[in-house]
Amino acid sequence: MAKTKAMLLEEIYKLAFTKLVEAGSDEHNASILSTVLRNAERDGSHSHGLFRLPAYLTGLKSGKINGNARATINEITPSFVRVDGKQGLAPTAHNVAVPALVTAAQKTGVAIAAIHRCFHMAALWPEVEAIAEKGLAAIACTNYMPSVAPAGANKAFFGTNPIAFAWPRPGKTPVVYDMATAAMALGDVQVAARDGKKVPEGTGLDSDGQPTIEPSAIVKGGVLLPFGGYKGSGLSMMVELLTAGLTGETFSDETKAQDNADGGPPIGGQFLLAMSPEIIAIDDWQEHCDSFFERISGLPGEGVRLPGERRHKNRLSDAPRKINLELLEKIALF
Amino acid sequence: MAKTKAMLLEEIYKLAFTKLVEAGSDEHNASILSTVLRNAERDGSHSHGLFRLPAYLTGLKSGKINGNARATINEITPSFVRVDGKQGLAPTAHNVAVPALVTAAQKTGVAIAAIHRCFHMAALWPEVEAIAEKGLAAIACTNYMPSVAPAGANKAFFGTNPIAFAWPRPGKTPVVYDMATAAMALGDVQVAARDGKKVPEGTGLDSDGQPTIEPSAIVKGGVLLPFGGYKGSGLSMMVELLTAGLTGETFSDETKAQDNADGGPPIGGQFLLAMSPEIIAIDDWQEHCDSFFERISGLPGEGVRLPGERRHKNRLSDAPRKINLELLEKIALF
Repeated sequence: MAKTKAMLLEEIYKLAFTKLVEAGSDEHNASILSTVLRNAERDGSHSHGLFRLPAYLTGLKSGKINGNARATINEITPSFVRVDGKQGLAPTAHNVAVPALVTAAQKTGVAIAAIHRCFHMAALWPEVEAIAEKGLAAIACTNYMPSVAPAGANKAFFGTNPIAFAWPRPGKTPVVYDMATAAMALGDVQVAARDGKKVPEGTGLDSDGQPTIEPSAIVKGGVLLPFGGYKGSGLSMMVELLTAGLTGETFSDETKAQDNADGGPPIGGQFLLAMSPEIIAIDDWQEHCDSFFERISGLPGEGVRLPGERRHKNRLSDAPRKINLELLEKIALF
Repeated sequence: MAKTKAMLLEEIYKLAFTKLVEAGSDEHNASILSTVLRNAERDGSHSHGLFRLPAYLTGLKSGKINGNARATINEITPSFVRVDGKQGLAPTAHNVAVPALVTAAQKTGVAIAAIHRCFHMAALWPEVEAIAEKGLAAIACTNYMPSVAPAGANKAFFGTNPIAFAWPRPGKTPVVYDMATAAMALGDVQVAARDGKKVPEGTGLDSDGQPTIEPSAIVKGGVLLPFGGYKGSGLSMMVELLTAGLTGETFSDETKAQDNADGGPPIGGQFLLAMSPEIIAIDDWQEHCDSFFERISGLPGEGVRLPGERRHKNRLSDAPRKINLELLEKIALF
């Protein structure tokens, strides 16, 4: 087991905040970003917690990321807002995009926020969860840098291209998930490599285009595969088209070509869709869905867990979180 | 190899049309339905061609399906149309839903059509392709009857719950796919069972909840699995929530409980989303995307096929299609 240090949530927040401000972020943005990183650790989503901080700091220090960004929104139609992230990190764009999107969807039943010029390297569930907490269903996706070979190819072309979904349950915690369309999230492969673990077959190819279960062989010159073969590959292509084709931002391979290769997160687009069951559904949708969730949870077998349940359970604890010591040493060097 | 009969597309259409009218469909609806079945055979999508006709005829004869249905549309907001299928087969509802949805999305950038009270047993790509041919991106999904066990369960609960996606390429054929969120479409498992073929591991469980590669063991008392484990399971749950939770129609397990068990298609809801790159994208989206499609098609490896390419190629041929003889004998009995 890797060595860890116990840290209170408040300490995690302060560490992130201090380092972000030192690296050139203003306090407004540092506060938004530190909250997202702390919440990921709080919920047990380690690969999207402090693990991301070094890349943020790198991008801020290289000047690629604008630490003083104030994203702007442009309400083009009653159902569509265009969001310019102004070269800031994605959570600072969500801060203005989500309220505008929610307002639009609550009026017309469905709305899109298309975010461009932002740097997304955080978990994807916080934004859909925030929308679901306003009583709306949500879908989000974002692209990245080439790290996944499309079905039929042996070269990285797609990003890990996650899709997130959330369903509102007023009075209860929403059902929320995000999933990489890669067989495994790059962050999880990196964590496995760091911790000396193997990955399942079908996760990726090595630098010779051969299948491998060594995460380090995938990270160093190899390539991830989409989950579920050509189906996951189709979904990953959809993510590229929604986040680049539809937003006007760069496709993953274009992103790489223009990135400064500082190791910080790459620029990219994000697609956010919000839908109102209150407007669209005919019947008493809350009871209808509550009963659905009860039936699925009661199915025979090992047990069906509602997506997001574990995260919401982790959230209830105020206990210190175990943070990887090597990571803390790395952060201290910034 | 199963015995086949060569039939011209026109003959396929006429066979379907005649049988549908005999079973109680009016000519307007029979024409819409026969076109969809013929187009599936034309494009090489055999599991959604004449293979579906016996179930349509069964449902019409039992009185479950309304052969004279005229779906109605209700424009609730500028971006949302509610469609009542009036107990007809789904393509008769698409006939009015798609034009209304396209008009809405061309104005506001994004729109939803939520269809309820329709019987969906056709391929899912025709409706998204029709939307893409109007210059819009589209996502569609529909639920069904329980045939897939959620990750963690060993009992059928989800339908095969397909998702379809289409991306417009004005002047060229759109990129179009549909995929079951089941490891395999039930129709394909049925065809494999009929033809005495095996299916890949991970496709389903037998009646004892054990993994099997015998399609007949899955069809008879067994259960399909979602593709890609818990990820496909999450997507299948999303389809249930969009097609039942959001439309107000029945979840797959509720559908089964109220079905008359005649073997015809079950009632259900459908979710249709249309998005306008013309309104949403910033740049010259057509060139931007054309260049993306060129790059992905040129990747090293066995070769990346753009989804829908094979179908569009099949479509160019006027040659007779080979139709399973046993299927034709079955149809003749109606």
